[in-house]
Amino acid sequence: MERLSGMDAMFLYLETPSQPLNICGLLLLDTSTMPGGYSFERFKAALAVQVEAVPQFRMKLRDSQLNLGHPVWAYDTDFHVERHLHRTALPSPGGDVELAEACGRIAAQPLNRDLPLWEMWVIESLAAEGAVAVMLKCHHSAADGIGAAGIIAQLCGTEPDSVVPQPIEVPAPPNRLQIAAGGALSIAERPRRFASALTGTLLTAMRTARRIPTGKTMAPPFAAPNTVFNAPFTTRRSVAFCDIALDEVKAIKNAYGLTVNDVITALCAEALRRYLLARSELPESSLIAAVPVAVHERSDRPGRNQASWLFYRLGTDIEDPVARLAFIADGSAKAKDHNAEMAPTLVQDWTASLNPTVIRSVLRVLPAVPKPPRPAFNLLLSNVPGPALQLYLLGSRITSLIPFGPILAGTALNITAMSLNGRVGIGFTSCPDAVPDISDIARHLEDGFADLRDAAAATSTK
Amino acid sequence: MERLSGMDAMFLYLETPSQPLNICGLLLLDTSTMPGGYSFERFKAALAVQVEAVPQFRMKLRDSQLNLGHPVWAYDTDFHVERHLHRTALPSPGGDVELAEACGRIAAQPLNRDLPLWEMWVIESLAAEGAVAVMLKCHHSAADGIGAAGIIAQLCGTEPDSVVPQPIEVPAPPNRLQIAAGGALSIAERPRRFASALTGTLLTAMRTARRIPTGKTMAPPFAAPNTVFNAPFTTRRSVAFCDIALDEVKAIKNAYGLTVNDVITALCAEALRRYLLARSELPESSLIAAVPVAVHERSDRPGRNQASWLFYRLGTDIEDPVARLAFIADGSAKAKDHNAEMAPTLVQDWTASLNPTVIRSVLRVLPAVPKPPRPAFNLLLSNVPGPALQLYLLGSRITSLIPFGPILAGTALNITAMSLNGRVGIGFTSCPDAVPDISDIARHLEDGFADLRDAAAATSTK
Repeated sequence: MERLSGMDAMFLYLETPSQPLNICGLLLLDTSTMPGGYSFERFKAALAVQVEAVPQFRMKLRDSQLNLGHPVWAYDTDFHVERHLHRTALPSPGGDVELAEACGRIAAQPLNRDLPLWEMWVIESLAAEGAVAVMLKCHHSAADGIGAAGIIAQLCGTEPDSVVPQPIEVPAPPNRLQIAAGGALSIAERPRRFASALTGTLLTAMRTARRIPTGKTMAPPFAAPNTVFNAPFTTRRSVAFCDIALDEVKAIKNAYGLTVNDVITALCAEALRRYLLARSELPESSLIAAVPVAVHERSDRPGRNQASWLFYRLGTDIEDPVARLAFIADGSAKAKDHNAEMAPTLVQDWTASLNPTVIRSVLRVLPAVPKPPRPAFNLLLSNVPGPALQLYLLGSRITSLIPFGPILAGTALNITAMSLNGRVGIGFTSCPDAVPDISDIARHLEDGFADLRDAAAATSTK
Repeated sequence: MERLSGMDAMFLYLETPSQPLNICGLLLLDTSTMPGGYSFERFKAALAVQVEAVPQFRMKLRDSQLNLGHPVWAYDTDFHVERHLHRTALPSPGGDVELAEACGRIAAQPLNRDLPLWEMWVIESLAAEGAVAVMLKCHHSAADGIGAAGIIAQLCGTEPDSVVPQPIEVPAPPNRLQIAAGGALSIAERPRRFASALTGTLLTAMRTARRIPTGKTMAPPFAAPNTVFNAPFTTRRSVAFCDIALDEVKAIKNAYGLTVNDVITALCAEALRRYLLARSELPESSLIAAVPVAVHERSDRPGRNQASWLFYRLGTDIEDPVARLAFIADGSAKAKDHNAEMAPTLVQDWTASLNPTVIRSVLRVLPAVPKPPRPAFNLLLSNVPGPALQLYLLGSRITSLIPFGPILAGTALNITAMSLNGRVGIGFTSCPDAVPDISDIARHLEDGFADLRDAAAATSTK
């Protein structure tokens, strides 16, 4: 039994039919390496054995009416892999358009809370010979980006015939009193978390005030321009993706003396600028991205989500891509510097100090609160480092990994990047009723990448 | 603007994630008749024009916080066919197993209440040359079986190139006051409906009491045996289907002097008996089916659902199929005779006399009410007469039509039959977590049908 942290539970309370809080990963597989050759039945049998060793895939939410705290994770004593594994196929010609459509549909469906919160969709009939796609979907309460990378690593091996791990021994399920007792203890914790959150906030406010004259602050929220990405969204989801070479990203980084993260951010900024220009909707002020930063190493707080949030100006108002690169690098250095002075557990402590009843009451009145004139931010932007190894999922070589984050908090665009074995997969999630043509953004990113690569090559050879 | 009747609205209030109240129709198409040949884009363009003339597909739920009555149907002023039309494909080999799996998944997903309550899924990659399947899904609040048959007729033509109907002129959307005002009026109606329901119930009770000594009553509810079909169900759905020749059903009916409805009921009874025998779970007393009977012609009440309910003993305790046929025919005659004396609008009047707040309160406490020792009934069984013509959906010849009803009220099995142009499609809906092998029931029905056909042929030639 493992109690959800306030931050983990927040992703449950914030979920609605039009705001499913899934995180997804699309794995493109070359099945030619699969021992015995690919068949869905063989894949299913291998998965059934492999998931025995993945605790996150075996545990489900448990709650009790006596419980005043957040729900707990407990092993599902009636676990069946076929409740989680689905098989579908793409219509002809089985290209990226059809694949994106299938993935958008999967991302749109909330998970069933009566089961462990994950699904795996095997997608067949891809155009490429021997190619099969796997869309893996987890609830955000069960894993953040780093957690998801960990799950993928647990599911995969570094060889086609990696040794299958030992299954977990499942403990007896908790009874209603155990669920409630832990909840009462967690309530006793709350005043301490509240004090810690309050102290952290005051300290952060003081330090931020001291920084303002120096100009070394990150972008403030609720100062973002109005864009199509802040249009209201429905239950539908659309996704798009691209997959670029990490070597080429590094060549740009080296040419201008930046970080990989800065280059990824700059590529997104360029793509968004091109997209908005083409729609004649480029705002005068820069777009602002909300960026989660992992605090796994700086936080001693429990929970599966270990993140704090930064706000980045993307410099979409700057015309020259190279000048924008420098602006982004400067901004991210300032934001990180500012963030280093903030309590890393601030978000965790605030969410931990609230009880489920208070959270639900706040969420109920929230729709009646007038919207501020400017959006908090324009998009969610996340970059998760993945394994630098060739991985095999149940014997099949992973040729590409694309992450998809959820859209939420009034922002209809999520861009998430994740590296794997020399490639960077970039996934775009939106709602077609808000942003009708998200695949254009992915194409603009690829075009902008080619241009920046050429510019960097010219700089390096000068 | 059209206000939902109490019975229509009941299907909204009763819906939960594990009890989606969809009605579905699977249409198998021979696309070789489609003018210009089949392509998804051509299909979509044709549908976009055709739905302009189908009011049920253009109207969505509207409600207002001021409204004390049920919600209303009003035209969706932001209607887009691509929000309703999906395209998918079957994995290899594209047979009935893969088709049933895809349809089960579609039936399991609740519809988005922000849109007109229907979806159409085009399913490609079927094994048969030129075959495409279409799964049409509507919410039960928007149509009952007869209503769904009407919608299919509106979508289809009797020729591959039937003339496209005139689009509807969409009126201005109602405002919040109009929605509320009608609701207040409908409340004023309630005491009258309550009086009518009470009178109808008392009359029915008196007439039933008078019937008991004569033995001419239908089966009472809550006297059904416990079966696997009354196991609790989850969010998952499985479907199975078969498609039989109406001529052969009629040959059986004529050989024994029955109705088509009696033969269909007997085929289901035989299939269920074989299924339960194979599991060594056949109860000593007969299974009881709840059967909706259309009151479209006997009721002047408003609403899209126009049904009353009968309870049939299926005679699953009788070994001889021919003896069982006679038992079913006798039972259905008694039930109809009994039903004719009941007020046809009884169910409609009771549901009309309750307001949304009362209904929601009752539904909230319902899970806490102890379950009666015996189930109300074992399955939902419905037989809907469909068009006797060859129909074409957007130019493609319909070769088969299979209806799927929802499972609800603690009963994990729905069998629905519908005739079309000399064929009878029979669809089985269940939950794989309750009934693991629903396709067995469909196979037992086909086997039982073959045996009964042989017996009838032997009788006729005697």
